[in-house]
Amino acid sequence: GYGRTGIIYYENDSDLRETQVSSRIRMNLDATTESDAGVEFGARLRLQHDQNGSRQSVYDFDDEEYRHDGRDEIRTQAGKVWISAQGLTVEIGNVDTAFDSAGLLYATDLGSYDRSGAFAPSVDLSAMAGGFFTYTDSYVSQNRVGVAANYSFGDLTVRASYVDPDQSDMDTDVVSDIIGNDEKELGISADYKWDDRLELSGAYTNNAGGWDGVDLFFVGARYAVLENARIGLNYVNADDFNVGGVADNAFGQTVALYGDYTLADGLTNIEAYVANNDGDWATKETDNAFGIGVNYDLGGARLGASIHRDYRELVSADMGVRFNF
Amino acid sequence: GYGRTGIIYYENDSDLRETQVSSRIRMNLDATTESDAGVEFGARLRLQHDQNGSRQSVYDFDDEEYRHDGRDEIRTQAGKVWISAQGLTVEIGNVDTAFDSAGLLYATDLGSYDRSGAFAPSVDLSAMAGGFFTYTDSYVSQNRVGVAANYSFGDLTVRASYVDPDQSDMDTDVVSDIIGNDEKELGISADYKWDDRLELSGAYTNNAGGWDGVDLFFVGARYAVLENARIGLNYVNADDFNVGGVADNAFGQTVALYGDYTLADGLTNIEAYVANNDGDWATKETDNAFGIGVNYDLGGARLGASIHRDYRELVSADMGVRFNF
Amino acid sequence: GYGRTGIIYYENDSDLRETQVSSRIRMNLDATTESDAGVEFGARLRLQHDQNGSRQSVYDFDDEEYRHDGRDEIRTQAGKVWISAQGLTVEIGNVDTAFDSAGLLYATDLGSYDRSGAFAPSVDLSAMAGGFFTYTDSYVSQNRVGVAANYSFGDLTVRASYVDPDQSDMDTDVVSDIIGNDEKELGISADYKWDDRLELSGAYTNNAGGWDGVDLFFVGARYAVLENARIGLNYVNADDFNVGGVADNAFGQTVALYGDYTLADGLTNIEAYVANNDGDWATKETDNAFGIGVNYDLGGARLGASIHRDYRELVSADMGVRFNF
Repeated sequence: GYGRTGIIYYENDSDLRETQVSSRIRMNLDATTESDAGVEFGARLRLQHDQNGSRQSVYDFDDEEYRHDGRDEIRTQAGKVWISAQGLTVEIGNVDTAFDSAGLLYATDLGSYDRSGAFAPSVDLSAMAGGFFTYTDSYVSQNRVGVAANYSFGDLTVRASYVDPDQSDMDTDVVSDIIGNDEKELGISADYKWDDRLELSGAYTNNAGGWDGVDLFFVGARYAVLENARIGLNYVNADDFNVGGVADNAFGQTVALYGDYTLADGLTNIEAYVANNDGDWATKETDNAFGIGVNYDLGGARLGASIHRDYRELVSADMGVRFNF
Repeated sequence: GYGRTGIIYYENDSDLRETQVSSRIRMNLDATTESDAGVEFGARLRLQHDQNGSRQSVYDFDDEEYRHDGRDEIRTQAGKVWISAQGLTVEIGNVDTAFDSAGLLYATDLGSYDRSGAFAPSVDLSAMAGGFFTYTDSYVSQNRVGVAANYSFGDLTVRASYVDPDQSDMDTDVVSDIIGNDEKELGISADYKWDDRLELSGAYTNNAGGWDGVDLFFVGARYAVLENARIGLNYVNADDFNVGGVADNAFGQTVALYGDYTLADGLTNIEAYVANNDGDWATKETDNAFGIGVNYDLGGARLGASIHRDYRELVSADMGVRFNF
Repeated sequence: GYGRTGIIYYENDSDLRETQVSSRIRMNLDATTESDAGVEFGARLRLQHDQNGSRQSVYDFDDEEYRHDGRDEIRTQAGKVWISAQGLTVEIGNVDTAFDSAGLLYATDLGSYDRSGAFAPSVDLSAMAGGFFTYTDSYVSQNRVGVAANYSFGDLTVRASYVDPDQSDMDTDVVSDIIGNDEKELGISADYKWDDRLELSGAYTNNAGGWDGVDLFFVGARYAVLENARIGLNYVNADDFNVGGVADNAFGQTVALYGDYTLADGLTNIEAYVANNDGDWATKETDNAFGIGVNYDLGGARLGASIHRDYRELVSADMGVRFNF
């Protein structure tokens, strides 16, 4: 797991304070056993405390402004069981989905909070989480069950996942006040690394997030032009994505150019992105978003900061520390 | 703790899917310390995630059909404290009760889910859990407190437990919509093993489950007729058991004959039971229940499957994997 | 963490039972990592189960009687993140406050439950918790955030803490039904130890517990008059403390004289206090409270008992065992 803390600024016209403290403590409780034949059996439960989370809420697309989510929750999260042997891992339960696990999907994230304004519709691609299933913080449907598999051989990793949000066929919807998203989601993704210089990543998901007929595509590539510099290009097609059938939430296609550069000290890493989105949704003001960030490696921990301007022409910034354990 | 996952089939005439995924992850968090004199002090909390639990709900005796419980809960369970020295262990809090701990009580359970249709009224004896107190998943009364003691010397283990569901005398009932079950439950049990061939087990509880005047009896015996074959006989008297004073929930007496046989590979274990119940309750169709199961030892984990036909003439089956850690 | 269990007697005229079982299991889940430069980064989550807690509820000042709190909760508590280097520790989140951490503040606590009747208004100084912020069991405001720092050099430790119960400026109150306590609390404290014989401790907090203008002061000293005997004097000024502006909850000033004596066996420790309070609140009957207790060291665990008569002229007693792990 990891811990992180620091402050985040969200540009804001209301009376709410723009700069607030935001922290997260995540502890994964993993238990494993190995059979005589070398098959690993494992189970994970997760304890997580979020103080004033770093993301905005997902469904509030009419809000013209940034705001802190004000959430202060500690949760014991639904678990998953896995069986692993010879590069193949099968997970059952609250699984990590194939789309969410694509290697470069979050490559534009900056700073210690790993935030990004590059992708529609919000400051962070994962704000599209209404768009596809992920390892969830908390279940919204009692009947949701997932199965996922991933297989690694050499430099190639392939993944597939299947999430049934309504395995009892009781027609419960994932989002209780919206009708329709109880379809089975199928996703696949693949990552390839060549000579430690070139990374390729692709993902596709059908019935994304349980919405009938919603397809999402992603491809990305990153190349190490120098020992200490990388440049990448990501493309997401979310033309199908909308929420509750609202027409003006067409999130369109996004292209992002990004890169990072490590200074001669070997500890300071500067990173940036610029992105173009052709979608057309309610709060959008511009087609271009950009951000720049820096991370300083403390060895076991890192200090980070970033500043972004997103498609709503709003500015956000953060500064903090993150450490893994 | 342990993890298990797989699929369970419940015969069913409704629109609900008959075969569903069911998983459990149980993590016991035990902390112990030892005094200079060798007395062990310990405490346990438990984290558990149930995905679509393997048991039917307890109080729905009018339902003519099997169904999955649809539960998907992750819970932090009430704890217990224990003190242990020289074979004697005293527990306080959410205790393992004497009746529930009797060595052969669950000996008819089959497969990786340890399910059984041998005892009234349901697919599993512990579906009679309304009948006696156990280590609970979640408290229904704030005032419940238990004390339990067990003592082992050589091949004999004796246990006693006392559960007061209303220690403040506020007359709160354990089951909030049913009046009456706030009595103090007293239970005793004993296990004896002779020469590793013969096992004897017996238990008695008074005011079972907090119900005034409800007595439960159990005796069981199992004998290893061969190195790799055992045969056993269990008897439960639940004549007193009913819920909410409903007369036709007289669960009567049950006799079960059971056995298991390990194949020459030393890994495959076949197990079966046949049971007769003379009770008379609403959904009962026949006096006989039977089941057969198999477990394959993976070393540290086991694959298992079982099929049952119970007193309602309904069939259920399961297949899955279970591993301890 | 620790576990403790035993029985507590509260004098009581109602029908509720006076002697009840009370237990607590506390498990601190600490995760730490160290940077190359020797800076420690850490995070804590806490799991705690309280069976019928040892304290009375805080806000019920009109109740003329003792009673058990009947609480039986298991909670996953809000976390904190810390960074530590060269004697300086900075905490963020659910912090241990400076006032609550003062070394001698709880020095009058007796027995295995560490209860005390020495300070106003209740059987335990920490029943004044409405008076200042502490590491909380559960958040009552989503927007609460704390920062604390402590620095040790040699025999001196100094601490400062800052708790903002409303960092978003949404004017939510800590206690939902009482208006006013959303101010920022600032606290400082210091401890000094001289030659292992003399201990000095002092603390001050402004806007205590989020209440505007409420100041609390504490000073204490303890001296080892013999190798096996100590005597101490504590002073608390809670003149400002009231709840909801109720005038007759003026808790005034309290002076307590206390000491402890270890018998020649080196294991049995006898402790006692006598306290005088000049406050004037609704349920007060006398200016003097006193108590005596004993602890027997089992090595890793301790048996303890205590008996108290507090300012309401009510008697309480406890007996139990406590062990750390």
